[in-house]
Amino acid sequence: MSHALSRRDLDFLLYEWLDVEALTRRERYAEHSRETFDAVLDLTADIGEKHFAPHNRVADANEPRMRPDGTVEMIPEVKAAMDAYGESGLITGTFDESVGGMQLPTVVARASMAWLQAANASTASYALLTTANAALLAEYGTDDQIETFVKPMLEGRWFGTMCLSEPQAGSSLADITTRAEKQDDGTYRVTGSKMWISGGDHELSENIVHLVLAKTPGGRPGVHSISLIIVPKYLPAADGGRGERNDITLTGLNHKMGNRGTTNTALAIGDGTHRPGGRAGAVGYLVGEEHRGLSYMFHMMNEARIGVGFLATALGYVGYLKAVEYAAGRAQGRPLGAKDPESPQVPIIEHTDVRRMLLAQKAYVEGGLALGLYCSKLVDDQITAADADEAAEIGLLLDVLTPIAKSWPSQWCLKANDLAIQVHGGYGYTRDYDVEQHYRDNRLNPIHEGTHGIQGMDLLGRKVIMQGGKGLGLLTARIAATVAAARAAGGAAADYADRLDVAWTRLVDLTGALWADRDPAVALANSSVYLESFGHLVVAWLWLEQFLAVGDAQGDFYDGKRMAARYFFRHELPQVGPWIDLLASMDSTSAEMNPAWF
Amino acid sequence: MSHALSRRDLDFLLYEWLDVEALTRRERYAEHSRETFDAVLDLTADIGEKHFAPHNRVADANEPRMRPDGTVEMIPEVKAAMDAYGESGLITGTFDESVGGMQLPTVVARASMAWLQAANASTASYALLTTANAALLAEYGTDDQIETFVKPMLEGRWFGTMCLSEPQAGSSLADITTRAEKQDDGTYRVTGSKMWISGGDHELSENIVHLVLAKTPGGRPGVHSISLIIVPKYLPAADGGRGERNDITLTGLNHKMGNRGTTNTALAIGDGTHRPGGRAGAVGYLVGEEHRGLSYMFHMMNEARIGVGFLATALGYVGYLKAVEYAAGRAQGRPLGAKDPESPQVPIIEHTDVRRMLLAQKAYVEGGLALGLYCSKLVDDQITAADADEAAEIGLLLDVLTPIAKSWPSQWCLKANDLAIQVHGGYGYTRDYDVEQHYRDNRLNPIHEGTHGIQGMDLLGRKVIMQGGKGLGLLTARIAATVAAARAAGGAAADYADRLDVAWTRLVDLTGALWADRDPAVALANSSVYLESFGHLVVAWLWLEQFLAVGDAQGDFYDGKRMAARYFFRHELPQVGPWIDLLASMDSTSAEMNPAWF
Repeated sequence: MSHALSRRDLDFLLYEWLDVEALTRRERYAEHSRETFDAVLDLTADIGEKHFAPHNRVADANEPRMRPDGTVEMIPEVKAAMDAYGESGLITGTFDESVGGMQLPTVVARASMAWLQAANASTASYALLTTANAALLAEYGTDDQIETFVKPMLEGRWFGTMCLSEPQAGSSLADITTRAEKQDDGTYRVTGSKMWISGGDHELSENIVHLVLAKTPGGRPGVHSISLIIVPKYLPAADGGRGERNDITLTGLNHKMGNRGTTNTALAIGDGTHRPGGRAGAVGYLVGEEHRGLSYMFHMMNEARIGVGFLATALGYVGYLKAVEYAAGRAQGRPLGAKDPESPQVPIIEHTDVRRMLLAQKAYVEGGLALGLYCSKLVDDQITAADADEAAEIGLLLDVLTPIAKSWPSQWCLKANDLAIQVHGGYGYTRDYDVEQHYRDNRLNPIHEGTHGIQGMDLLGRKVIMQGGKGLGLLTARIAATVAAARAAGGAAADYADRLDVAWTRLVDLTGALWADRDPAVALANSSVYLESFGHLVVAWLWLEQFLAVGDAQGDFYDGKRMAARYFFRHELPQVGPWIDLLASMDSTSAEMNPAWF
Repeated sequence: MSHALSRRDLDFLLYEWLDVEALTRRERYAEHSRETFDAVLDLTADIGEKHFAPHNRVADANEPRMRPDGTVEMIPEVKAAMDAYGESGLITGTFDESVGGMQLPTVVARASMAWLQAANASTASYALLTTANAALLAEYGTDDQIETFVKPMLEGRWFGTMCLSEPQAGSSLADITTRAEKQDDGTYRVTGSKMWISGGDHELSENIVHLVLAKTPGGRPGVHSISLIIVPKYLPAADGGRGERNDITLTGLNHKMGNRGTTNTALAIGDGTHRPGGRAGAVGYLVGEEHRGLSYMFHMMNEARIGVGFLATALGYVGYLKAVEYAAGRAQGRPLGAKDPESPQVPIIEHTDVRRMLLAQKAYVEGGLALGLYCSKLVDDQITAADADEAAEIGLLLDVLTPIAKSWPSQWCLKANDLAIQVHGGYGYTRDYDVEQHYRDNRLNPIHEGTHGIQGMDLLGRKVIMQGGKGLGLLTARIAATVAAARAAGGAAADYADRLDVAWTRLVDLTGALWADRDPAVALANSSVYLESFGHLVVAWLWLEQFLAVGDAQGDFYDGKRMAARYFFRHELPQVGPWIDLLASMDSTSAEMNPAWF
């Protein structure tokens, strides 16, 4: 069996910890049961093993190429996998039954997608992008747009992308120069260049639905003039099929260190390569209202950021499972103090330092998965909230947690991949084993969908202070509840609770102190350190949650959970101390550094 | 100009800090002067820029291939570079004048080699391996062996390798199965398989001199039966050229994540592919005495380990220089609080978080270079010591520092490459920029020449306790001298000194505590954490040394040094606190973890 995630761990997290089964008592999910959730996971595992995992390395070694005619050449296994995925109906997971969806809880759909990401991150990205695109249109599009664009995506026939970045505006969306002009018939004509567009072109689907950020006349400067425009590769035909070729064309494929199976593209929009309706300019359709494009996109971006966290976790997780298997099977060396140099060599998992590296991986990847699933469950809680106030509160909590859900796995599950290589030794550095690819693939995640640095600015500069710190307060209340429960449980749980409580209280207090004189340059001087401290404490909290969910349960699986929690509280949590000290000192070293001094 | 190292920084470290010029007052180096040292560095920079740097990425994208006839196909630029290097005479750097060497101080030769490693790590490896091989033979070989094997290597005509690992014995040399049998004529016949042999085959040189670890009959079990045998690819001819093809053949090339320009090979020895003297079995020549092979190799391995540290540093350094250049040139975003969204974008080096990432890189790579040069200068001090006692003391100090010189840059200069990618954003993840290659190349370094874990065992299990901890005491005395000088200097230096002193004293005290009950399983349970704590403190000490060497000097360069020292003491040194706490707690989490619980 090929590796992906651990089903045992998923079952624990979903059913024994998060009690996802209880969601079926809510009206939205009333048609579901644990059996239907399990069936989704079983189906996913089957597709992952048959169609995704087998070509993971093949796709890496044979990356997509742009043919002279401007089309994309790719190994056929990717289309076969995506066809199988489309036929499975899994892509309809969270969508409403009214549009043909399975109306699954987000947390179950995310678990399913994470499985595929672990099996083959690059191929799964086409699915993830299409889901995100369709979800945005299902939320903000007109009925007609849903009929025209969302339905073919849910049928697996059309794929979707998000077109934000431009060559001169990667992280700075205020500086995009793509423009859209309204036409007399209500459509738009779009011109510009987009960069870093994943899945931006390929021959995998009948059509590609691009969601393009473009400036439209009349808005205030910067991001307030941005609108969101649907720009399909082929204009929709009256019969629901694809019509005329639109004026959006591939100008280049980016050649990446990893994640090579996913095309990453530079696109020219409206440069006259194609002439829909007899003239240059890409035909586009406005989503929602003009100048509100970024707010629609941000809604999607929160989900995309949690999705990046899952991607990072999935890559770390599958590397961890492979490292455990390798360490159990590879004989090398002898126990400390062995007297006979000719006694048989032992599996390297017998060496304490190898177990340390495996425990660290376990703590990172299971922590990352817990974090992603927790946030996904919050999405379900928000969707099914009793009233608008409750939904708003959960939304605030999600806002605060999203930078962590994105950045923490991107950092630490990448570290897990690093350790998986180290466990493999020289073999891990060769392309005969998978772990080096997982590491290269995972290195993308601290960069895209908002770099690590941008997540830090978002968290400390916006999320923890908005509405007077209400979101931070909600998170603190949840952590306090876990701490109280752990203290009541006593023993190691109480010890962990004390450690977490002290550090979290310091960080919260510090948040106010950093903003005391309201100068962003002072408050944000070490925002990445704040982000990393916050992240480690959130994951410590979720390890404490897991530890409590384990309780007194017996068996190897539960012993493993207890040891991973212990590892996190003894080896990882204490590292936060100096980070918080640094923040408390209002250190200005980086701020004072003069560029001329490098 | 292509990037490599900073000549300004090298000049500072060599002349302003280490006072390498004073070496010319010692007899061995009396023929030299700062002018000859500078000439070596100038020549290196010229060769690096003309012959090494230009094909660095080309070699990565076109890795060596094994032809059907068993020879190696490689881009021609590698041979051109190595020919230029051979002609330059640089390879003779540290060798005695009596064998045609330049008799340079090690510290200067290392600086020269590091420059080439930064320009092109993979091509430079052929030179480094040949130097190490020749140095070992120059020390332990007979006059005849020196004449036959060392001279052609110093002429750049023959290359050398080190053949230690085998498929079933990577880190565990006791388990090698290659055997050598003495023949009536005094030569040996060797049979076995070797794995991970860098430079193990190629067509770059007329001949390849392999130094092979093999077991010879009669020794005690394990490592005590290992001898060191010269196995040339071609037997030496009477005229000094190459004679009959020896029975050592390439069976496969390893395909690696990085460092692709250096062939890494599996070799069959004595399998009858060639029949020197009419029969199967590779002809070999014993170095020194039987069963002492590992001790000769360990002498070389210490140098090789310092060499790996330089390699890691060089890769981190060149990535840092490229990141600074990119950050100064890439416009993106605006200063915090900028009111006008249409004001011009600023270079990203204006963003504090980008400067944090650059400062971290600067602290790592300049710290790593200081560490490597310090150790190299110790080698010179040892060679030119006044008496045997002084030489022995310096040798002990080097023994203690070697695991750090190898492991610390392998960890932190790899981290520097990670940050160089992050500074480049999406572009850094593409193969259009160099930094992703440096990162892939550098990932090798925590693995080869003794993994990170093995360095930890070597440091805590052997180096700091041998001779009753004498080596550790010598290091402590040097650190104490720096601390005293810094306290006398006052100001920031005194503050840094206090921080270092407290942490170092704790670590030294702890060393005894860990070994209190003499149980290696207890003492070594967290040896990697010990290694990392030790390394960070050693580099903190060397940053304090640099800070003192800067003194009150004025100018951008010195301001940069001061800020990097400040960064190290404020951001990096405090991280050691929780690591030492963990060690002090005698944490047994990894030791107690049961393999069945993963």
